[in-house]
Amino acid sequence: MSIELVRTIAELKAKTSALLVSRAGAGGGEVGSGARAVGTLALVPTMGALHHGHAQLAAAAVAENSVVVASVFVNPLQFGDATDLARYPRTTDADLALLEKVGVDFMFAPTVEQMYPTGEPMVRITAGKLGNMYEGASRPGHFDGALTVVAKLLHVGMPGRGLAAPDAAGRLPYRAYFGQKDAQQLTLVRKMVADLNFPVEIVPVPTVRDADGLASSSRNRFLSEQERESALVLSRALLLLKRRADAHEPLDIDSAVDLVRSAPGVDLDYLEVVDPATLEVRGENCQDTPFTGEALVLIAAKVGPVRLIDNMPLG
Amino acid sequence: MSIELVRTIAELKAKTSALLVSRAGAGGGEVGSGARAVGTLALVPTMGALHHGHAQLAAAAVAENSVVVASVFVNPLQFGDATDLARYPRTTDADLALLEKVGVDFMFAPTVEQMYPTGEPMVRITAGKLGNMYEGASRPGHFDGALTVVAKLLHVGMPGRGLAAPDAAGRLPYRAYFGQKDAQQLTLVRKMVADLNFPVEIVPVPTVRDADGLASSSRNRFLSEQERESALVLSRALLLLKRRADAHEPLDIDSAVDLVRSAPGVDLDYLEVVDPATLEVRGENCQDTPFTGEALVLIAAKVGPVRLIDNMPLG
Repeated sequence: MSIELVRTIAELKAKTSALLVSRAGAGGGEVGSGARAVGTLALVPTMGALHHGHAQLAAAAVAENSVVVASVFVNPLQFGDATDLARYPRTTDADLALLEKVGVDFMFAPTVEQMYPTGEPMVRITAGKLGNMYEGASRPGHFDGALTVVAKLLHVGMPGRGLAAPDAAGRLPYRAYFGQKDAQQLTLVRKMVADLNFPVEIVPVPTVRDADGLASSSRNRFLSEQERESALVLSRALLLLKRRADAHEPLDIDSAVDLVRSAPGVDLDYLEVVDPATLEVRGENCQDTPFTGEALVLIAAKVGPVRLIDNMPLG
Repeated sequence: MSIELVRTIAELKAKTSALLVSRAGAGGGEVGSGARAVGTLALVPTMGALHHGHAQLAAAAVAENSVVVASVFVNPLQFGDATDLARYPRTTDADLALLEKVGVDFMFAPTVEQMYPTGEPMVRITAGKLGNMYEGASRPGHFDGALTVVAKLLHVGMPGRGLAAPDAAGRLPYRAYFGQKDAQQLTLVRKMVADLNFPVEIVPVPTVRDADGLASSSRNRFLSEQERESALVLSRALLLLKRRADAHEPLDIDSAVDLVRSAPGVDLDYLEVVDPATLEVRGENCQDTPFTGEALVLIAAKVGPVRLIDNMPLG
């Protein structure tokens, strides 16, 4: 079945419901994969400019659900800077082709007017203190805007009827897929869903890396060859810390910071070892004391004109 | 069928879904009212201390839906003042009896821990500029807290499955009922549902008044006999303005303000003629120019120790 491009909320709701009902009625046979649960709907929210990281995100959703919607929407609300918004890549035709290849049923690509019919919304989601840390520290309001659009998309995609029962494992019939690369966004989305009781399961998908180790990102296309070479120091620093953690050695974060700073054209913003659930800075001494437990390392740096983020689970 | 008291979210979801399915399966016959649409669920959020205004709110929900849940939860998040929170009346047994008499199926009365299992939520709803006006001006954070708990309750009550199709008029199968007396709250809830695309229909129910004209409120019980007599000036001032509006006369708001101020022990906070949709202060001259169009009058005053609000649609 080929992918369908959908532009309006009403059309999306009608078409996903109809397809869910039809596939549930057919016992799941027509979707061609025994591994799919019958009667589940998945949403994969994206800002487009899709790369093979997104493809793996969408593929995970396709593998586990009856009907899959990928949304492509560059959300003005989460850009503080109009220039950054304007230069964010838009590649609709290529996005549609990539999603079709992966087996996504609908690409939902609404206009700004469709998502914000009365202009900027008055009532919004606010991310709280975590929204002002790390990426939020240099992008005020970014996570409030991101959570607001995610809340909207989660409800736009939520089928009002026609859902079959939870599957044998008791999982909810509605899921949304997010990449672990945007660790802070993923944590905040999970917190939003828990704090506001949204009936959706958030499914994290591991970071996809290019062959050279750089985390896949829509912004990588703006790196020159030389900048890309420099940018590799981010994943190298994370791998260095992971090796130390795996060996239960002290992390010696200072040396990782020095490594990043040694690369030409790399302006380190932060490198922090945090609690993987809350993203609060880990209280333990990670410099000199043998590493135990679980942690997440967050890193952000500007490489030439491009701000990059990456992260690595430890333990 | 007698009402059932439910204390947990999981129990509520399971029981409302089961009852919805059973009533839809029975063709609606067992609910005993031909006027009810089959397969719709209604939520009536309250803070308890129910009076006959709430009874009419719940009765409207019972008349129009297959299954009705009334929630009773005194939400700490919307009280700025711990004393006000502590003295807010709790009358669970009487609330249950009132709701049963009206025909409500479930009274959902969760603990604070059930609603906020990790303490105060980090991610919240924020009301925007309207949240800082009128009631919000004297109660900072009140509407953020109120919208956050309403968002939670709307999702807690939202059935994940088992819903029948929208009714013949195309109305959504999930509705929530709010009194027009809390005009600013109603406006903000509608704005939240629109801005965040929550799949629920918000149904407003007209203000219920006691025989003497005072708008029914859980706080009225704190008025002394003399204070209650003084408090009647609020509804008298609103009716005065309504008579002038109906006659297309100038509203002469100054005289209504003077009337309220003349009552002993009444401390007027605001009396404003506003746009009924946005609650923005109406641009037209309402003092000297003949009244045309539509408006809402908002009034708030402290009478003795009790803060009272009321409002009246004009035109």
